[in-house]
Amino acid sequence: MKHAKISINVIRRLPRYLRKLDDLAYHGVERISSGELGRKMGLTPSQIRQDFSCFGEFGQQGYGYNVSALREQISVILGMDQNYRAILVGAGNLGHALLHNFGFTNCGLQVLAGFDISVDLVGTEVAGVPILHVDDMERFVQENRVDIAVLATPRRFAQNLAKTLATYGVPAIWNFTNLDLDLNEEGVLVENIHFSDSLLALSYFLTEARRENEETEA
Amino acid sequence: MKHAKISINVIRRLPRYLRKLDDLAYHGVERISSGELGRKMGLTPSQIRQDFSCFGEFGQQGYGYNVSALREQISVILGMDQNYRAILVGAGNLGHALLHNFGFTNCGLQVLAGFDISVDLVGTEVAGVPILHVDDMERFVQENRVDIAVLATPRRFAQNLAKTLATYGVPAIWNFTNLDLDLNEEGVLVENIHFSDSLLALSYFLTEARRENEETEA
Repeated sequence: MKHAKISINVIRRLPRYLRKLDDLAYHGVERISSGELGRKMGLTPSQIRQDFSCFGEFGQQGYGYNVSALREQISVILGMDQNYRAILVGAGNLGHALLHNFGFTNCGLQVLAGFDISVDLVGTEVAGVPILHVDDMERFVQENRVDIAVLATPRRFAQNLAKTLATYGVPAIWNFTNLDLDLNEEGVLVENIHFSDSLLALSYFLTEARRENEETEA
Repeated sequence: MKHAKISINVIRRLPRYLRKLDDLAYHGVERISSGELGRKMGLTPSQIRQDFSCFGEFGQQGYGYNVSALREQISVILGMDQNYRAILVGAGNLGHALLHNFGFTNCGLQVLAGFDISVDLVGTEVAGVPILHVDDMERFVQENRVDIAVLATPRRFAQNLAKTLATYGVPAIWNFTNLDLDLNEEGVLVENIHFSDSLLALSYFLTEARRENEETEA
């Protein structure tokens, strides 16, 4: 697919569209207007039309969008048809939670193996994924194409492991360690999950709501 | 503090500023210009000045920002001085990971207790937090002020538990269940952690990088 440079804000909204379209499909909705989709997502219809226009024409004027066709096209834009292969680095509590509960395959991703140093974990399977020793990681990455490393170790191991993964040629890291990895030289793509950003936003909204209540009562 | 309505984008950036300021303080930086802070964060200096101007004057023209004073003011805006109290609902793998590794206290939050139904967990402590039975949650919330419930149960229990927490009067939910909770009627604040949004953005960037490589090579 050929398309112009897309703004980061549009990219960030695409997974949200996808979730909403999945939800609509699940409830049997086959077609939706930009106005209705906007109401459900807190966006204006023109915002939605503008977002989708980045990728070519999805809808028909006056007929709205075909839910399953739109979903399909967004999933292709997001690379969900690329059969990406991942490894999990750090198979502790968080790693377990991800393997057991997170829908990697729904995102088009296959988790090939997990890596850890714990003797209790190495040699076991978690949710069908074999857990290997970190010492075997280099060989494993050489023998298997690995597109994404899911980094779920304690924070203190994160930077070194990220550098190591970069030298092995892993091109992308999904980072749960709450450490801003320094991989500028290596040209590795890093996407961070910062739990605290989300919690502090909630803390702000709660504080704001209480301030408003106090002002109303005063 | 009295201030005008702040845009959601500014709010979402505040925790990022906080992380960067923590990092600067850790490395002994006491003062930073909007230009330098911008370079470190991929924002323009005028963007930064505009963001901070929402909350009054933080910096001095030509002198830059005092790192620790700015950090302090942002933390107050985010409600981190409010001594918020939380409970964890669902103390499985993800709950364990959060209690062991996430810095609740760094966000100004105290976790009073966790709740679960597993006989193996109820009665234990995880990272110093007592795990109680879900049947005791109503009494607990009545006897203790609870500001935020961290919802980390399997997805299928999420909506019912969220409704229950709302009826108990818990005003805010930090939602890890990957389910869009329907709490419009209840007026409960909900902040979602959607792992898939982040993974799919990474999948997009990886796909985009490969497309660019292919075009360069072609």
